[in-house]
Amino acid sequence: MSAFAATPDESISAEQASYVEAVNTALEDFIIGKRALLETVSPDTLALLDSIRALVTGGKRMRALLCFWGYRGAGGNADSADIIAAGAALELFQAAALIHDDIIDSSDTRRGGPSVHRQFGALHAKNGWALDEERFGQAAAILTGDLCLSFSEELFATIGVLATSRARFVFNLMRTEVMAGQYLDILEEVSGPSKPHSTAVQRAAAIIRFKSAKYSSEHPLVLGGALAGASDELLSGYSDFALPLGEAFQLRDDVLGVFGDPVTTGKPSGDDLREGKRTVLVGLTIEAANQADMEFVDSHLGRQDLSDSEIDRICSVMVDSKALERTEDMITSLSNQAFAALDSLAIPNHVKSALSHLGRSAVSRAS
Amino acid sequence: MSAFAATPDESISAEQASYVEAVNTALEDFIIGKRALLETVSPDTLALLDSIRALVTGGKRMRALLCFWGYRGAGGNADSADIIAAGAALELFQAAALIHDDIIDSSDTRRGGPSVHRQFGALHAKNGWALDEERFGQAAAILTGDLCLSFSEELFATIGVLATSRARFVFNLMRTEVMAGQYLDILEEVSGPSKPHSTAVQRAAAIIRFKSAKYSSEHPLVLGGALAGASDELLSGYSDFALPLGEAFQLRDDVLGVFGDPVTTGKPSGDDLREGKRTVLVGLTIEAANQADMEFVDSHLGRQDLSDSEIDRICSVMVDSKALERTEDMITSLSNQAFAALDSLAIPNHVKSALSHLGRSAVSRAS
Repeated sequence: MSAFAATPDESISAEQASYVEAVNTALEDFIIGKRALLETVSPDTLALLDSIRALVTGGKRMRALLCFWGYRGAGGNADSADIIAAGAALELFQAAALIHDDIIDSSDTRRGGPSVHRQFGALHAKNGWALDEERFGQAAAILTGDLCLSFSEELFATIGVLATSRARFVFNLMRTEVMAGQYLDILEEVSGPSKPHSTAVQRAAAIIRFKSAKYSSEHPLVLGGALAGASDELLSGYSDFALPLGEAFQLRDDVLGVFGDPVTTGKPSGDDLREGKRTVLVGLTIEAANQADMEFVDSHLGRQDLSDSEIDRICSVMVDSKALERTEDMITSLSNQAFAALDSLAIPNHVKSALSHLGRSAVSRAS
Repeated sequence: MSAFAATPDESISAEQASYVEAVNTALEDFIIGKRALLETVSPDTLALLDSIRALVTGGKRMRALLCFWGYRGAGGNADSADIIAAGAALELFQAAALIHDDIIDSSDTRRGGPSVHRQFGALHAKNGWALDEERFGQAAAILTGDLCLSFSEELFATIGVLATSRARFVFNLMRTEVMAGQYLDILEEVSGPSKPHSTAVQRAAAIIRFKSAKYSSEHPLVLGGALAGASDELLSGYSDFALPLGEAFQLRDDVLGVFGDPVTTGKPSGDDLREGKRTVLVGLTIEAANQADMEFVDSHLGRQDLSDSEIDRICSVMVDSKALERTEDMITSLSNQAFAALDSLAIPNHVKSALSHLGRSAVSRAS
């Protein structure tokens, strides 16, 4: 497989661009529609909306696009209001998850700007308000995320009803699994060090599956199919493609979190290591490193005060133990599995080609 | 008005008890139904479900009951699956709000037991896990609240579709307003001290309205009416009753938060003062106290380390400035307004009597 994604043909790009445009407009209209309501509560509360708006205007629209092509693959109309609402709902859900994630991970930045809790902390500082800046920032961000979750559902609930029973099931499943998966992730950060090294890779793989691959890839695609009334066979074919693809995507993310360029990723280098993320890459490192290196990695992960030279040593261990190489091999093998499944799907060729393009850019990206 | 609520007649109690029983069963069944799903993610994630379950098995079911009587008043059937799902959805929403509230307020306890973030902190400590106990507790509680929000919506979305468009609007409005109102509340804690004293009461009243009266009283009742297809006139009559009732309820809550018995309220005495809650009671105190007392109250509110004697002094200022008395007068006047509106509603007598009983126990309670 080429490391560079092939450019999709023009008609696909145009269809995709017009859908993204429609989702953007739906999000913009929805948020503008909420301004009047929040103003009646108090103009002060518009700050919540501004934070949400800034978050949903960025991003790659990965989930919305998967949902769109899942819908198109099952014969849905490109300009249906339902698929636009579903895409916008997925984007709002993702924005909510990011807001809460950044609190959980104490991340200062998001997409190059301050994270939402930092925005509210800055608002506090700028106004010289009383009590604690950090606590206020966190509290406001918890509420902003909750508001955004409700917005997501509100948009989803506008979808025409007859088509939605299977889609509703997928949307519900997605939300439960991603929150359970995120819990496993924070649990692994604290309980991983005291669990057997031999199962670290397996535990990290389970987290990837629920927190990321199902949520960011499988469920959006299947949701789109369900909205268009796809057969069980097609939906299960969608899963065969999107689940390994999502796993490969997350493994790529983990590699970028350690070895990526901070300029393109928008995240400070070493952040994932300071946070103590117990990824598959980390699991493979601990499995294969010699005793001294293993102990060094195990005892330094999750330290907020990791120095640059400590980060460098962890990176070297990842390379020398071949954990990085093995992770890249896994990405390749999962991608191959995904694209083989895609090939055998009974969907129109231009949908296949659009999904292939989306998938390839997901697993070979640099940011 | 009597300080004690009249006992409602037996048929009302029986109808109410059978509804509460049905809501309890719906919640229990829903949560049991999620166990299998979470187990497939990982048995570790059942801890999230246990926390939610413990929260929703307690509580007064105030919102569910208002919703029920709103439904009954508009001619809905007592054993309709829709009104049971709506009540259970309101209870799950409230549980989610409590979980996040307790993080925001750094509350250690809830209904006599540890709050959810403390439960997860204790789980961390018991297992001797790595990193920070408190951060883990908070992160797990953010996720538990998010999961509970999604569960609320999932149950609400099972409601028969034809009847729901107005009800869906109310449910959406309720969620946006309560989150905006909660934001105003935390904003007032930090920005209140630097805002004019002369508008403190008015600001506190706006917070009460959106964060509490509309959410806990008006919207549940109107939601029930909307589910049964009530006329605009009846829905607006419901608001005339439930909004002042909800305001009186919250004023009672604020009084109990300072002067209540910790044994019956389940909250340590002085908690609201340490937290820096800028209630109507506080606003009235600052408005009416002499300069020295006013400055004392203003500068001591929100201090985590308030001593018992400082709390006593604040309480004395509240009494001596007649702020407590004026708050009690407001409770009486709002209650009178609410019950006059109730009297003029065109609904069956037994519904009127049930609502009157519910309302009176809300405003004259001791916990």
